[in-house]
Amino acid sequence: MQFSFHCPTKIFAGSECVDRNSGQLAALGNKALIVTGGSSSKKNGSLADVITALKKEGIQYEIFDEVEENPGLATVFRGGQRAKEMAADFIVGIGGGSPLDAAKAVAVLAVNEIRPEELLERNWSVKALPFVAIPTTAGTGSEVTPYAVLTVDTAETKISIAGEDLFAKLTFLDGRYMLKLNWQITANTAVDALSHSIEGYLNKRATVLSDMLALESIGMLGKLLQTMEPDHISLAQREELLYASMLAGIVIAQTGTNIVHAMGYPLTYYKNLPHGLANGMVLKAALDFIEQDCPERVGQVVKAMGCHNLSEVGELLTRVLPNVDLKLTRAEQKNFVGKIMKTKNLVNSAKIPEEKDIDEIFKLSNLADG
Amino acid sequence: MQFSFHCPTKIFAGSECVDRNSGQLAALGNKALIVTGGSSSKKNGSLADVITALKKEGIQYEIFDEVEENPGLATVFRGGQRAKEMAADFIVGIGGGSPLDAAKAVAVLAVNEIRPEELLERNWSVKALPFVAIPTTAGTGSEVTPYAVLTVDTAETKISIAGEDLFAKLTFLDGRYMLKLNWQITANTAVDALSHSIEGYLNKRATVLSDMLALESIGMLGKLLQTMEPDHISLAQREELLYASMLAGIVIAQTGTNIVHAMGYPLTYYKNLPHGLANGMVLKAALDFIEQDCPERVGQVVKAMGCHNLSEVGELLTRVLPNVDLKLTRAEQKNFVGKIMKTKNLVNSAKIPEEKDIDEIFKLSNLADG
Repeated sequence: MQFSFHCPTKIFAGSECVDRNSGQLAALGNKALIVTGGSSSKKNGSLADVITALKKEGIQYEIFDEVEENPGLATVFRGGQRAKEMAADFIVGIGGGSPLDAAKAVAVLAVNEIRPEELLERNWSVKALPFVAIPTTAGTGSEVTPYAVLTVDTAETKISIAGEDLFAKLTFLDGRYMLKLNWQITANTAVDALSHSIEGYLNKRATVLSDMLALESIGMLGKLLQTMEPDHISLAQREELLYASMLAGIVIAQTGTNIVHAMGYPLTYYKNLPHGLANGMVLKAALDFIEQDCPERVGQVVKAMGCHNLSEVGELLTRVLPNVDLKLTRAEQKNFVGKIMKTKNLVNSAKIPEEKDIDEIFKLSNLADG
Repeated sequence: MQFSFHCPTKIFAGSECVDRNSGQLAALGNKALIVTGGSSSKKNGSLADVITALKKEGIQYEIFDEVEENPGLATVFRGGQRAKEMAADFIVGIGGGSPLDAAKAVAVLAVNEIRPEELLERNWSVKALPFVAIPTTAGTGSEVTPYAVLTVDTAETKISIAGEDLFAKLTFLDGRYMLKLNWQITANTAVDALSHSIEGYLNKRATVLSDMLALESIGMLGKLLQTMEPDHISLAQREELLYASMLAGIVIAQTGTNIVHAMGYPLTYYKNLPHGLANGMVLKAALDFIEQDCPERVGQVVKAMGCHNLSEVGELLTRVLPNVDLKLTRAEQKNFVGKIMKTKNLVNSAKIPEEKDIDEIFKLSNLADG
């Protein structure tokens, strides 16, 4: 039994957990930069809760609310500049995966004078500022991972940076912030979390401990995806989604992602598909591929999801995800496959794909043009 | 769903994990004080492995090997003095619960000029030195908890101190160090771990996440206790014991212990019973007591252990633990009950005991004299 495990983030969950644990923020310093998107954190109550907590603790703050979906380097460098100017002691990221990942990069850039290439090469010398993660979708897992995924136009794809100092010091999981999320985002992000757990389970770096967390997460997400009513998602279900998504994040913090995420990145970069949806579109065919070598492990995934076979898994994904009418041209697909094969985590897949396998997964996912 | 979770320790497990991850030690500094007992770490190979790793990394070290079973304040203050004198950057604890807990106190005392009362009142201002835990028994869980239990003669009992800085920075779990442990210590320590998971599960502070870990740990320990052959315990079984014990430690790091540990402390202090054995002797009767209010949760424990009812649990404990011929006098029992009722964690029990309940548990455990 050989394994390692690391999950240093202090996790608080439940309604009003930010308010109830505001003292934890005070331990991080006197000045905070809040990093968030333009609107959702203002509408769902999360930003107001954070401001109330910061005021209660006498912490000065500024707000950088310029994070776009799939944040690019320009954004995080602007945020880093803001953090420097105010001499922030810590960063609070609020939002889905985009603001949280941007906030991590801002925490690095706040204390390091580096160029974009150095950020992407994980080449910084001063530890990132402490970072607090407040997810308002249930999918990213970023609140408990050491990763930040940034969109890099020079590379024409998304690139993941990693470092122990990118683990959040604190995370607050309050399902109330998701009560008004529409079904499409709810389903896309839940499928993102599901693919985290599945990719962590069907992974050469999987361990006895990550397996336990992955199967628990897959089980909860499978059940939720099968039983949630799009227009009537309860707070309890929102909390379960957040919890299962967090477990999935802890899983990939140990294992990394692999085939599905590698294939999802170009679909998001070039075709503007939401991250979770992009993953979900290739998930079933990726499972078909891995099953060839690992029927037992894939069988455990199917069983944990509450399904009888992979066809049922595919039907469930088709049912919960929006229908996308997309065919890649041959040239596009060739370009995508080239980028996918360069993804370093691919070697950790329980079955390592070759180019022809990626082509086949695109084909089985109805994305190949002939 | 309200919960919190914290497990900052970086965990490495598997044969030769100290050697394979020696670079992790270098990140903690240049000078280490090794805190251990008089003999076992010399015999089981753990001390030699640590020294090899420290030398490989160019780290100076000294050895403080004066930790007795159930370490007292005098010992940890001597250790703290040694750490100060050598200006240690970090502390490496090697051994069972006694050396690990002593090492934590040494890590505090190395950087704080405080009196014994201040240590016991958790009243120190400078964060403890980084601490590395290398367990050589599978029971304590100290490698992943923020607790250190010390024997305090002025209070005539064991007292637990706690603090976030008492979490180990690193722990190395190598089952090879336990290959020569005799059956009695193996069983006593496994029952200690089992009682950690059970007390964490039957606990008002139990959460969805601690429950998952507790049931996994109870399941593994139940199976191991039922199937291990005392003279032929394999490395794989040793590793499972260590893993299950670590999970149990993560559980009590969230919940704390309660009735069983509270009752075990005076049995150890006054009657010199090994810690795990002392817990094991009252565990079955404590379960009978809690079952009155929580039949379903106790039923889950029984089921996880692979038993059909509490009688079977009792029979299993009787079978694996040594027979102790001990009756408390009425005066002794009265003294014990008084101390037990002062244990602060008792209020977290799924069913909170009164004095008469503690008396009844002693009686059902065949420890009461009439």
